[in-house]
Amino acid sequence: MSLDRVVPHEAIVEPQARYLADLMGRGVQGTADAVVLPSTVEEVAAVVRWCYEHDVALTARGGGTGLAGGAIPVQGGIVIGFERLNGVRQFDPLLWRMHVEAGVTTADVQRLARESGLRFPPDPGAAELSQIGGNIACNAGGPHAFKYGVTGHWVTGLEAVIPPGEIVRVGGPLRKDVAGYDLKSLLVGSEGTLGLVTAAWLRLVPAPELELPVVGFYRDAEAGVSAIERVLASGVVPAAVEYLDGVTLRFSGDAYPFGVPAGAAFMVITEADGAAAEAQRVAGELREALADEAVAVHAPAEPSEVTELWRWRAGAAFAILAQRGGAYSEDIAVPLDRLRDVARETLAIGERHGVPALSFGHAGDGNIHSTFLFSPDDLDEEQRADEACHELFELALRLGGTVTGEHGIGWLKRGQLEHQLGPVGYDLHLRIKQAFDPKGLLNPGKKR
Amino acid sequence: MSLDRVVPHEAIVEPQARYLADLMGRGVQGTADAVVLPSTVEEVAAVVRWCYEHDVALTARGGGTGLAGGAIPVQGGIVIGFERLNGVRQFDPLLWRMHVEAGVTTADVQRLARESGLRFPPDPGAAELSQIGGNIACNAGGPHAFKYGVTGHWVTGLEAVIPPGEIVRVGGPLRKDVAGYDLKSLLVGSEGTLGLVTAAWLRLVPAPELELPVVGFYRDAEAGVSAIERVLASGVVPAAVEYLDGVTLRFSGDAYPFGVPAGAAFMVITEADGAAAEAQRVAGELREALADEAVAVHAPAEPSEVTELWRWRAGAAFAILAQRGGAYSEDIAVPLDRLRDVARETLAIGERHGVPALSFGHAGDGNIHSTFLFSPDDLDEEQRADEACHELFELALRLGGTVTGEHGIGWLKRGQLEHQLGPVGYDLHLRIKQAFDPKGLLNPGKKR
Repeated sequence: MSLDRVVPHEAIVEPQARYLADLMGRGVQGTADAVVLPSTVEEVAAVVRWCYEHDVALTARGGGTGLAGGAIPVQGGIVIGFERLNGVRQFDPLLWRMHVEAGVTTADVQRLARESGLRFPPDPGAAELSQIGGNIACNAGGPHAFKYGVTGHWVTGLEAVIPPGEIVRVGGPLRKDVAGYDLKSLLVGSEGTLGLVTAAWLRLVPAPELELPVVGFYRDAEAGVSAIERVLASGVVPAAVEYLDGVTLRFSGDAYPFGVPAGAAFMVITEADGAAAEAQRVAGELREALADEAVAVHAPAEPSEVTELWRWRAGAAFAILAQRGGAYSEDIAVPLDRLRDVARETLAIGERHGVPALSFGHAGDGNIHSTFLFSPDDLDEEQRADEACHELFELALRLGGTVTGEHGIGWLKRGQLEHQLGPVGYDLHLRIKQAFDPKGLLNPGKKR
Repeated sequence: MSLDRVVPHEAIVEPQARYLADLMGRGVQGTADAVVLPSTVEEVAAVVRWCYEHDVALTARGGGTGLAGGAIPVQGGIVIGFERLNGVRQFDPLLWRMHVEAGVTTADVQRLARESGLRFPPDPGAAELSQIGGNIACNAGGPHAFKYGVTGHWVTGLEAVIPPGEIVRVGGPLRKDVAGYDLKSLLVGSEGTLGLVTAAWLRLVPAPELELPVVGFYRDAEAGVSAIERVLASGVVPAAVEYLDGVTLRFSGDAYPFGVPAGAAFMVITEADGAAAEAQRVAGELREALADEAVAVHAPAEPSEVTELWRWRAGAAFAILAQRGGAYSEDIAVPLDRLRDVARETLAIGERHGVPALSFGHAGDGNIHSTFLFSPDDLDEEQRADEACHELFELALRLGGTVTGEHGIGWLKRGQLEHQLGPVGYDLHLRIKQAFDPKGLLNPGKKR
């Protein structure tokens, strides 16, 4: 029985290039026999059932904005996309909750919440393109995860299709549930290797009245990391604690809306949020904590300035990319006391491999985007940038951290997991994969 | 090889009654061949290995304060207690984190945090007796879970022993990690059926400067639940949203420190917290939201009064118990729009079974302690109270909820899980159990 007997003909589209890659780069493009764009969970179940009956690999993709190759169909087969499974099934603003299908973009979730005075706090990059299903599959983070937690923290229930083609619902519009094993958390972050998330119940929270960033500039990483430590010791909970190192600042600073002060070679961005008076109080504490040894402290207060600041921060990745045309930006996370090591060692690794290096990211969570640049015309340099990434992964483990804080293992970090989890943990990991997907057809080659 | 060849002789103690039961009641006491009280994770591993080699059941217990019989050794074998594995391995107040062994009491974790200006927010009952390992195994909640989340939200890493006797470490002092499947969340709430938690990395947060409860009294449940809905619609995030119904109030109201006003037959307790001005602002909003239709609103502001209020709230369970000498207090959780149904149906269920009924609990999380009273001398009444609990579980599922929001399935709710998860979800649940504990020796008969 061919696939078009189990899903409507129009749900099957040609495997165009845009369905075969994500933002990982490295020249990796997958192959697929067909791309299926189901409109209902039953169609998703039918596709999984068909793949399981015919031993065909099945790779799920959301918006395709992943950076680890998680959505690349490296072993061919079928690609399943969720762009047509994009309904808002229910929205109860007075009860702080929303039930959305996997293909709704993260920005639409955020927007819908905002229009009712609520907030869906996870704010990974590319929210306009990324889909909530993909964000759940990667347990995406973002700057405000420091105060608000990552995507999984806001998911109270999932609908998913698991092999050999069954629809399962775990949790729901419930804020507490300890009945079964935490299947919801197991599916969150599983990168499409255990099941396909088709819908989610999301928890929301009243939106803060005011967001007040406070930015400190320092002469070096040592002074900047000390400032971050003072922020943590100050007794307030910032909404975000980011850093950009000197190289990042050099490459992206021209567009910084308030002018990078002379002598600045490290930048710390914090943010206070809440009701007006509370946000101002926290911003005051942050200013004080950041001021010591600072070259300058900026505290943009106008809403338009705040938007400008975060837009610039989100654009830093593009400014970096523009430097040489190519950039591999990773997402290791380390214990907070190892931030200094990451900032310093990133540069040393770049030097050893002869590629420009820099780091920036979600400092408060210890989750740093160490980045290595290359020219796409220089295959050798690109190769060296890739090798630098692998040395970075080793660094993360040596520092007691993880090779991925928010992008996932995907295809890029294949082989790292055993190293990180150790033989006992890795064996458990494989046993769980086996329990969900005994034929190993879901996103083969990934998350391992 | 006998057990005393693999652990020190003094680690093995007689199976006294206090190691064979928890607070579930129902006259259930387990049996055990021996109780082992290891002092190191290696000793825990040796016990698990020995049990696995000899096909002996192994039941873990923390402080024994569980209400679902999760710690009762219903199939004999070995009981393992964690009271001697109670070291604080590391405490980094400036980095908001703590590494503790399973046997540290929850109150000690809270105290240690508080002494450094921090807070470990989970606040389940019996904190002086319950151990952090047991709280993790049950994913314990408490009143302040509304704002702060349940125990698992504060665990960033676990050390555990899994069959056939391996020590595994997942996560660590890391705030973000999406590398492997979420084994940490899988162990959290698994009630000792997948592995034995031996130590945990906990995340902490700066303590609020002020806690300001605001209490509303209403003439009936309808008015009280409407007040709760207004609180949610008010745009502030209370630290807690509790309710006590009219019967609860009648049984416990005499000891209420500020005097229950005449005509009050439903009580809503909310709390504002944060820096002084912010807590006062939120308390003001709460007062306003609660005032409508209220018989009275109380807003105790003195720290001693706040302590008194919460001490009284924690003692309500004992006042209830004292009424007839026996009480079965469950912990279903439902979507927030079904609170009214729970309050009403609890009374109707009690009436149908001829036992006094009442409800109170963590209303903001939809997690309600519906309770049925009996006299311990009246076996028939006790039986009817137990039957009422089972009808309550059916109610929870009919309302789209869970049979357990914070106590766990344990032994008490055996057979409920398949009903709640459905055949596909339950099959997945069993496959996960199989992946961790193929011989089914860990806490047999539980969590199913």
